[in-house]
Amino acid sequence: MSSVRAAQVTSPGRKFELVERELPQPGPGQVRIAVEACGVCHTDALIVRGAFPGLDFPLVTGHEVAGRIDALGEGTAGWQVGDRVEVGWFGGQCGRCRPCREGDFIHCTALQVPGLSYPGGYAEAMLAPATAPARIPDGLSATEAAPLGCAGVTTYNALRRSAARPGDLVAVLGLGGLGHLGVQYAARFGFETAVIARGADKEPLARELGARHYIDSTAGDVAEALRALGGAKAVLATAASSEAMSATVDGLAHCGELLVLGATAEPLTVTPLQLINAGLTVHGHPSGTAQDVEDTMAFSALTGVRPMTETVPLEDVGEAFERMLSGAARFRMVLTTGR
Amino acid sequence: MSSVRAAQVTSPGRKFELVERELPQPGPGQVRIAVEACGVCHTDALIVRGAFPGLDFPLVTGHEVAGRIDALGEGTAGWQVGDRVEVGWFGGQCGRCRPCREGDFIHCTALQVPGLSYPGGYAEAMLAPATAPARIPDGLSATEAAPLGCAGVTTYNALRRSAARPGDLVAVLGLGGLGHLGVQYAARFGFETAVIARGADKEPLARELGARHYIDSTAGDVAEALRALGGAKAVLATAASSEAMSATVDGLAHCGELLVLGATAEPLTVTPLQLINAGLTVHGHPSGTAQDVEDTMAFSALTGVRPMTETVPLEDVGEAFERMLSGAARFRMVLTTGR
Amino acid sequence: MSSVRAAQVTSPGRKFELVERELPQPGPGQVRIAVEACGVCHTDALIVRGAFPGLDFPLVTGHEVAGRIDALGEGTAGWQVGDRVEVGWFGGQCGRCRPCREGDFIHCTALQVPGLSYPGGYAEAMLAPATAPARIPDGLSATEAAPLGCAGVTTYNALRRSAARPGDLVAVLGLGGLGHLGVQYAARFGFETAVIARGADKEPLARELGARHYIDSTAGDVAEALRALGGAKAVLATAASSEAMSATVDGLAHCGELLVLGATAEPLTVTPLQLINAGLTVHGHPSGTAQDVEDTMAFSALTGVRPMTETVPLEDVGEAFERMLSGAARFRMVLTTGR
Amino acid sequence: MSSVRAAQVTSPGRKFELVERELPQPGPGQVRIAVEACGVCHTDALIVRGAFPGLDFPLVTGHEVAGRIDALGEGTAGWQVGDRVEVGWFGGQCGRCRPCREGDFIHCTALQVPGLSYPGGYAEAMLAPATAPARIPDGLSATEAAPLGCAGVTTYNALRRSAARPGDLVAVLGLGGLGHLGVQYAARFGFETAVIARGADKEPLARELGARHYIDSTAGDVAEALRALGGAKAVLATAASSEAMSATVDGLAHCGELLVLGATAEPLTVTPLQLINAGLTVHGHPSGTAQDVEDTMAFSALTGVRPMTETVPLEDVGEAFERMLSGAARFRMVLTTGR
Repeated sequence: MSSVRAAQVTSPGRKFELVERELPQPGPGQVRIAVEACGVCHTDALIVRGAFPGLDFPLVTGHEVAGRIDALGEGTAGWQVGDRVEVGWFGGQCGRCRPCREGDFIHCTALQVPGLSYPGGYAEAMLAPATAPARIPDGLSATEAAPLGCAGVTTYNALRRSAARPGDLVAVLGLGGLGHLGVQYAARFGFETAVIARGADKEPLARELGARHYIDSTAGDVAEALRALGGAKAVLATAASSEAMSATVDGLAHCGELLVLGATAEPLTVTPLQLINAGLTVHGHPSGTAQDVEDTMAFSALTGVRPMTETVPLEDVGEAFERMLSGAARFRMVLTTGR
Repeated sequence: MSSVRAAQVTSPGRKFELVERELPQPGPGQVRIAVEACGVCHTDALIVRGAFPGLDFPLVTGHEVAGRIDALGEGTAGWQVGDRVEVGWFGGQCGRCRPCREGDFIHCTALQVPGLSYPGGYAEAMLAPATAPARIPDGLSATEAAPLGCAGVTTYNALRRSAARPGDLVAVLGLGGLGHLGVQYAARFGFETAVIARGADKEPLARELGARHYIDSTAGDVAEALRALGGAKAVLATAASSEAMSATVDGLAHCGELLVLGATAEPLTVTPLQLINAGLTVHGHPSGTAQDVEDTMAFSALTGVRPMTETVPLEDVGEAFERMLSGAARFRMVLTTGR
Repeated sequence: MSSVRAAQVTSPGRKFELVERELPQPGPGQVRIAVEACGVCHTDALIVRGAFPGLDFPLVTGHEVAGRIDALGEGTAGWQVGDRVEVGWFGGQCGRCRPCREGDFIHCTALQVPGLSYPGGYAEAMLAPATAPARIPDGLSATEAAPLGCAGVTTYNALRRSAARPGDLVAVLGLGGLGHLGVQYAARFGFETAVIARGADKEPLARELGARHYIDSTAGDVAEALRALGGAKAVLATAASSEAMSATVDGLAHCGELLVLGATAEPLTVTPLQLINAGLTVHGHPSGTAQDVEDTMAFSALTGVRPMTETVPLEDVGEAFERMLSGAARFRMVLTTGR
Repeated sequence: MSSVRAAQVTSPGRKFELVERELPQPGPGQVRIAVEACGVCHTDALIVRGAFPGLDFPLVTGHEVAGRIDALGEGTAGWQVGDRVEVGWFGGQCGRCRPCREGDFIHCTALQVPGLSYPGGYAEAMLAPATAPARIPDGLSATEAAPLGCAGVTTYNALRRSAARPGDLVAVLGLGGLGHLGVQYAARFGFETAVIARGADKEPLARELGARHYIDSTAGDVAEALRALGGAKAVLATAASSEAMSATVDGLAHCGELLVLGATAEPLTVTPLQLINAGLTVHGHPSGTAQDVEDTMAFSALTGVRPMTETVPLEDVGEAFERMLSGAARFRMVLTTGR
């Protein structure tokens, strides 16, 4: 194999086109990954529209990448050709900035993100810094692993670091790519789990995934419904809607936490009085490091958490985008390369 | 003494009038306090205007009360006539609700507040539940102790429970009744302390109280100024201005905290993206329990933290209000009874 | 009913005798409980031998008491005749000491324990302070609830307050009254759970209760076995053997915790070097408050955790003791009164 | 300069000899440090006796190294010739093991220690991995900085990560190389500080350094003395004596912590009952990473914490050892090179 196929976007907002690229060779500190599967995240839509600074077009995006290492650059001790790996949003740290020296790699001031900082996983091969990959455990296929590097680790990390304790009421806001994983994790962490979503039709699935309670946000006041359950110790806000997040705040129990995952630039509507009276916390959660992704996958393999995916071949990336953007996807579109 | 003087407001928004009231007799579970000093808090202005639900007029407000116990009801074991005590915002818990059973008294669903739930400290005598008082240590006068039951404990508690660690940059937003205490505590906790206030004239005092840095919020971008110092691990937001609070968010270091103390019903302007990117926390802090007040006073006595006060006799409460509301007070008006 | 049966011990070390006692009347702040079931704890054996200071013989012990309130003294607002309640090791706090004022009731300096500080649950009726009972949720019988007030809450609390996070390896040392509950909680909290016990015969039950790994402590080095699994983030040490606890220390992962529950006066064999090199923690856990017991029962009802019990009628308490002391009990003996 | 002087030990237990060594050249990922000062730590005495596995003799020890970078290998971005740096016990991480990937570098399974894993600071020049150095702030001389890389960071880190909060009673056990720094940090963190040491003669110095209370451990029961002060929330155990540490346990307040710093292989004498009854924690603390050292130095420069040192020229290392081992040093011997 001397060339690889990739789905690229020539300039911001253009359609994907399938191109042949020369097989990239790993430089010092880099590994090459034979991509088997790559999840399609909402953020990818922002990236191909050029909504991030410093993007380099033509651009190959994709940051939920599962495959196996097939070549090693110098200085990549610890990795071997054939290792099954995942690279998620976290695509490598600098190791030298203050957060890195504190061991807080996800806040690296020069954080690398695949498909953003360097060509990503919408391709048959990808290079990545040796600090980026996470080992995929036996028992997870590439398609299952792919979404765990972003949608999975984000919900898993936020919940395991929350102050909520087993038995506490934890509500998952939104039942999409992140939410359908969040509710599975929440149930397996021993929380009394509620799902808040739009419409009654998602209730059966929510319960199947582990929800003990279901709140249809179109049917009444969400905060009131949470209070009727005793108040939530945490709301895992996966829906990228500040309005929907803000509507849960008065449904938090004393000392409760709003865990903000849904990235939007629209301000929350939360007042100091609300926060003070009940001693509330609003906390933003980035995704997680390579080790976090490894932990997420290990936990998922151990306890049976699996993303619900629809797979399409790499060349049909346009169709995958359509299904994601229209809300039709159940719940994560994953591109496969046949490798 | 069979009657006591009190400064009451007959109906919402009316002026204070000095009246004689019968000396109250403590019922079961109550102590009577001979009031020596009572701080004047901004919240008192809201109370006398009737801005809280369930108020009972004519009303005697005041929740920064220092004095000594001079009579005991039944079931008040542990207290003795002559004990020097402070009753702050925390005026007693029910002991039976879920937060109380968890030991989280400040979130008692039936929390009592002096001057709000029952007649307060703008008087020569006050009754309080036996769960309300905190012991005043030797070395603090009644005038010094009074503001520590609300302004003091609020800042002390928020800072000691913060995730910031000695050596971290902590900024105090506002240099008024709360802020001038907050900066003293922050410096004595080993933080690298900054003060953010309006205008250049407060800088000398800020430095005298322990600030290593001073940021004039009228002179430039506050967040930028914080970032130039490396970013704040915590902002202690004592100013009751959502706009001023929101302006500090981008000045927080990774994993930094906005500690919200200034009670206002105006929404903050904070977006999920801001919170997610830097892993930030916004946390509301109520004041503190009787034990917290006792800890606050003990620490203040130990380390020399003192409120700056202007004292006026009880009968001049109207003048005290004027100075507070005009911003002239340096920094806490305290009423004295001569007892 | 004007008299009730009770199993009492006349003087330290004597056998139980069944006596008729006058039906006790609740004083101020007390409730009376019609006892339905009472668990038999190893500590009870120490108590009836007189191994605690300040005991009052003849003595009725028992601190895992399930029943219903059938009479109320004054000042017991919040409780009603007919409420189904549990009183465990925590039998009421003073409310006035420093730990109580901090909300840390379990460390009350005048902590009441049923069957130790006042007549306990080896009887058809018992008085208790109104601060002692925990509500039994629907779905738990009295026999199921009884052991949760001590064996249950101790393991549940230690695990939910541990620094271990879902996915981490947590080992339960001992598979007896506490351990068989501990492994159920650990599995439902999302831990990768191991059981360490003596002999191979307990392995099937351990796995049935949720253990993913089983370590026979008679078959080899326990620490080595834990290290082979990657090292434990926490060991829940329910076996009252300092030797067995100490043998796990080198099997902890970096920053791991030894959670000490098994009460014994024999010193641990742990060195500063062991603790320093791996950053380890050894932490002692008392049981838990009334609210903790309530949480334990609610969680158990929600997730299907149940104690394994053998019930015998109150009059056969001697037989219950024999089975417990011989190690024959599977796993908790519970006395029933027929009420 | 083509050769440098070093104080080496030819074989375990032999005396130091001053030798000329070729000036070492930094390889990839290494920096060279022109050593100005190097602290003498008790552990050095164990190292030169050969008490650690895998030592390479002749050996140059020393792990409290202050100087400036004077040569850079490849791949050392971020460092410049002339940077003033400290390398303490933490001498570099592998970056690939599980603790490293978690950001917990101090528990790196292949942790490098200068003077142990590679030639240390008893020399005019030293090579170190680029992950090892910490920047020395203006305001600290090399002699002042040197001991902060081990004695300083160990006490600073243990205290700042303790659960004790400003105002709590914290006792420092031992007033030697670590303890005399620990008491300074404890006082500046806002703790009510006690020192426990042998004999009455150290009291004046203890108070001068910030102790509010002094306990002479030869004059009575230490635990009782701590209880008389209300019980310690933390004991910072710097004395390498398990007996002295164990004697403080019953002097801890409820939920108190014994912070174990003094490295000894002698078992502690602590029982499960002691730990359970008061909810106590025993926690071992390693030193700290490069960033922790940087934080320690920054805090010390900010707040005036300084080690008390006696300096001797490198060639008099034998004398320095004698003073340290005889207990005559006040409090840290520091070797100077004249560079």
